[in-house]
Amino acid sequence: MTWTPEDRAPRRYVDTAKAVRRGLLVVYTGDGKGKTTAALGLLFRALGYGHRVAVVQFIKGQWQTGEAKMAKALADRVDWFTLGDGFTWLTQSYEQDVASARRAWAKCLELLADPTYQLVILDELNYVLAYNFLGVGEVLEGFSRRSPTTHVVTTGRDAPPALIAAADLVTEMRKVKHPYDAGLKAQPGLDY
Amino acid sequence: MTWTPEDRAPRRYVDTAKAVRRGLLVVYTGDGKGKTTAALGLLFRALGYGHRVAVVQFIKGQWQTGEAKMAKALADRVDWFTLGDGFTWLTQSYEQDVASARRAWAKCLELLADPTYQLVILDELNYVLAYNFLGVGEVLEGFSRRSPTTHVVTTGRDAPPALIAAADLVTEMRKVKHPYDAGLKAQPGLDY
Repeated sequence: MTWTPEDRAPRRYVDTAKAVRRGLLVVYTGDGKGKTTAALGLLFRALGYGHRVAVVQFIKGQWQTGEAKMAKALADRVDWFTLGDGFTWLTQSYEQDVASARRAWAKCLELLADPTYQLVILDELNYVLAYNFLGVGEVLEGFSRRSPTTHVVTTGRDAPPALIAAADLVTEMRKVKHPYDAGLKAQPGLDY
Repeated sequence: MTWTPEDRAPRRYVDTAKAVRRGLLVVYTGDGKGKTTAALGLLFRALGYGHRVAVVQFIKGQWQTGEAKMAKALADRVDWFTLGDGFTWLTQSYEQDVASARRAWAKCLELLADPTYQLVILDELNYVLAYNFLGVGEVLEGFSRRSPTTHVVTTGRDAPPALIAAADLVTEMRKVKHPYDAGLKAQPGLDY
């Protein structure tokens, strides 16, 4: 294996002369674990700077998760909204699901327009777009009108191409090995 | 696009009868952003359950990061060790780098043996292994002797095949789009 200086310290090799600072659109997608988890890592990092963060969970509503508990403990700086119906999405009618998504999206627009949030995490929004409960054009228009320094993060499998095209940072979490495949149970503090 | 129930709720479809609960070995690797970030997300989640967490940073020593600030604020439950020399690794002699890695590993073994930690994050250990500053065999032996309920997470590019083979969960963070490519500067609260 050969190594170049670029391999080990990519963040150093930015031409800061032409660098700009603005709110980014970050997309975590793919079939591997770590998408929501990475979004929570951004939350953790942002809190270290005293930033204010909003999280909208589109899907995981019914779970009492470690992240929700922790967010509650940090409620002065983290606003946590649970707008899905857990895993019951899609067992209802398409029309009902669309109506739920639209209610959630109205809240998102409110958060995105609020300049006091430095980071807005829209957890599992990619799913909602892939299922066509919300139109990607409408969502991107909402993103473009957000407070200019607000970072937006979306998570979920199957991020639509138009979302990827509009994003500043896209990482595909690719599943190499998954503990469920070996019969290991989802564990508090690791999986949720 | 067609969807099956499995697509939307993978964590539900675990055969809990054969499921076991034990500390997992998690590896986040690949050239995309989100590896350390996902490890921090696990930390956030674990704290929600009141778990105790140790973090060893092999590389990012000199940075004053959001995560380090936040960990300091949560110092009663997060122990944060910085053992690298920032990005100066590899500019020194190989022998010096090996000696630094060995000192760091001695601390890791101590943390891994301590049953009061539910999660031990070894940030950028994959790099250290890829550069052969530590032998993967020795590291895996150390992992195998850890407290049985402790989750271990390693991050960094180029995780060696033997580490991937031993791991329970491996996600490759694949770079799809990177903000530095567009001349965007690393930003506090997002990149560090």
